[in-house]
Amino acid sequence: MYLDQANREQLQQWQEELAAKHESFKSSGLNLNLTRGKPSTSQLTLANALDGALDGNYISDDGTDTRNYGGLVGLPGMRALAAEILGVTDNEVLVGGNSSLTLMYFSILFAWKFGPNGEGSAWKDESTVKFLCPVPGYDRHFAICEEFGIEMINVPMDENGPDMDLVESMIAGDTSIKGIWCVPKYSNPTGCVYNQDTVERLAKLGTIAADNFRVFYDNAYVVHDLSDEPPELSNIMDYCRQYGTENSVLQFASTSKVTFAGAGVAFLASSEDNLKVISKHLGIASIGPNKVNQLRHLKVIKNMADLQSHMKKHAELLRPRFACVMRHLNENFSESDLGHWSNPEGGYFISFDTRPGLAGEVIRLSAEAGVKLTPAGATFPYGKDPEDRNIRLAPSFPTVDEINTAMAIFCNSVKLASVRQKLAV
Amino acid sequence: MYLDQANREQLQQWQEELAAKHESFKSSGLNLNLTRGKPSTSQLTLANALDGALDGNYISDDGTDTRNYGGLVGLPGMRALAAEILGVTDNEVLVGGNSSLTLMYFSILFAWKFGPNGEGSAWKDESTVKFLCPVPGYDRHFAICEEFGIEMINVPMDENGPDMDLVESMIAGDTSIKGIWCVPKYSNPTGCVYNQDTVERLAKLGTIAADNFRVFYDNAYVVHDLSDEPPELSNIMDYCRQYGTENSVLQFASTSKVTFAGAGVAFLASSEDNLKVISKHLGIASIGPNKVNQLRHLKVIKNMADLQSHMKKHAELLRPRFACVMRHLNENFSESDLGHWSNPEGGYFISFDTRPGLAGEVIRLSAEAGVKLTPAGATFPYGKDPEDRNIRLAPSFPTVDEINTAMAIFCNSVKLASVRQKLAV
Repeated sequence: MYLDQANREQLQQWQEELAAKHESFKSSGLNLNLTRGKPSTSQLTLANALDGALDGNYISDDGTDTRNYGGLVGLPGMRALAAEILGVTDNEVLVGGNSSLTLMYFSILFAWKFGPNGEGSAWKDESTVKFLCPVPGYDRHFAICEEFGIEMINVPMDENGPDMDLVESMIAGDTSIKGIWCVPKYSNPTGCVYNQDTVERLAKLGTIAADNFRVFYDNAYVVHDLSDEPPELSNIMDYCRQYGTENSVLQFASTSKVTFAGAGVAFLASSEDNLKVISKHLGIASIGPNKVNQLRHLKVIKNMADLQSHMKKHAELLRPRFACVMRHLNENFSESDLGHWSNPEGGYFISFDTRPGLAGEVIRLSAEAGVKLTPAGATFPYGKDPEDRNIRLAPSFPTVDEINTAMAIFCNSVKLASVRQKLAV
Repeated sequence: MYLDQANREQLQQWQEELAAKHESFKSSGLNLNLTRGKPSTSQLTLANALDGALDGNYISDDGTDTRNYGGLVGLPGMRALAAEILGVTDNEVLVGGNSSLTLMYFSILFAWKFGPNGEGSAWKDESTVKFLCPVPGYDRHFAICEEFGIEMINVPMDENGPDMDLVESMIAGDTSIKGIWCVPKYSNPTGCVYNQDTVERLAKLGTIAADNFRVFYDNAYVVHDLSDEPPELSNIMDYCRQYGTENSVLQFASTSKVTFAGAGVAFLASSEDNLKVISKHLGIASIGPNKVNQLRHLKVIKNMADLQSHMKKHAELLRPRFACVMRHLNENFSESDLGHWSNPEGGYFISFDTRPGLAGEVIRLSAEAGVKLTPAGATFPYGKDPEDRNIRLAPSFPTVDEINTAMAIFCNSVKLASVRQKLAV
């Protein structure tokens, strides 16, 4: 279906057929949902051994009674595993509670209120604070910035990551830019993996940016591969050491999509200097993380080999879901001028770009026919997609059957909205 | 031993005897610790059934899959139990993670940055922000205020709670007072229980204070009775309803000293209006609390009857420890002019007041003889006890034998410091 090559008659015929199909979907009263970037029940069940994993022994290998107070930076064993996951040393990791979002929030709060380098470096004392936001991106990152009144600037992404020429030139010319949000592996929602050059240049930003600038490097999908031969993400901390910019990057990750989404363990990796500043303030706000949960995790996932074999089971459950989405997109749009989409090798999302100005309408039509999609604009700062074209598809939670039906409706909605738009010109 | 009635010769003889005893303690190389307000290993073991309590079933009674994301205000079952503990309705409770301190911190942060009543009520927009701090009190409360640059004003306490005449007159005359810290039951460290009049007048403060004033009511020891016939704390929310001040009080509690100190469940109880404002901001900072841990708690402590019988086991373990401290204090000081102390019926602390100017010296002498005590001043804002006399004793963690030895050293240190001071006049 190439709209730009079709005559009016052809377009009208398509419109009639698509509208009829749309009506038949509407009348079947479906209630499907492709919005939820969360693990399915089967995935969660993979980690059911967590409850009871301790077998009555709450003492960790290093002798800590995990039941009692203390241990702000986490259990040594968990720090070691997190360090291996994120490619840093054990002393460069803080293991927190169940939410890496909370660690990000605290990192922003402390930088804003107290300064990432201590006295004199607080963002709040500067007239304007800006963040670069590669788009499309993750709405909860943007929500934190909005909460703190941090001005967000869109930066386009391609399959290698953010446009680094633009990032560098903006940062070099504007010291009010204090941060950039990155999801370097299987970026939410495009699924792209930052290439070696992008990672190196992100590590090098610390040489041109303000002293209190930080890369917020949310490595949420660091071990969340769909394929057996996953793309490799370069180690950003290695580049930081090379450029002497260890303080300029804060890495985040968690086991939310490894074990339990709401009851996992979150990590913050950075230089020892940064962890010292962050721990100082975190110690005012918390009696320490839930170490019992950390110990449970260590019992079930003892090392990288355990983690990798555990993630393969997730991949087995996720692959058919992603494949179903891709099949629909390929069958409907590979020979068309109706949209572009990503084919991620991991993570939780597939990103679809409609023809300009149609995302909202596609989402409306899909909802009308019983398929809930992430609201238009959600993947952009302030909820505003300037071209109104990006739609985030989240296939992890529904069954393959549900995805199959939902995608048929989605594809029909894209076509119908596109044809209608073309006819209206 | 009445110093004020002793002659110089008697004082000198005492000094020699006490100094000799001190030297013999010093030479025995002890290493004891009365600083730690945390449960002993035996107490923690009372809740060991938590791990494995779910028996593979992670679904709560209301149908929530506790493993997944969501549920910012907590599981309905846990909210109901918390509501009963704190004397509010289910909708007036938010159940959080493992740290009530974090809920207090967030409450202060949100009030400071965004305002407890929403737009226009942020504390940070006023030239000065002050808190009333009944003293002696809890150092971690004071640390949060210090972190946010909130000016703290000492308010004396007696056995019925803070001096409410003073509290009311200060608040009526100064709209920059935005809060007061309270530990209404078994106050940390004096162990006093606020009487009915104090609770009622705290609830009534909302009628005279600034609109964005809040009582921070840390009911940390709400069910932590030592005796079988514990004193009753009046229900503050009932008084708030009577005076229409439901928005003026934020109550906090947790199971840290019920189940696991580092892996319990924390509560915030307040009006639905307040919870709405707090949830709005908390939802930016968190993916929701660890609901699996909440469900585990509900399996082990199903209702108030379970909770009460569980707390009786704690009391059995704590009673001999408190009794040992009291025996030493009574034997050494009941017929003396060397100090005053509390005899709490619950909680975690005993508060001892030396003669003025001696707390630091007693702590130094005790440390010299092998007994670590909470640093002088820790129970006051900015770490400054204006009379240098308050010492917080924490007998929960050591064994009775250890407490016995530690208290012998403590009492000798008090006497030695007092006699020396008297001789130096």
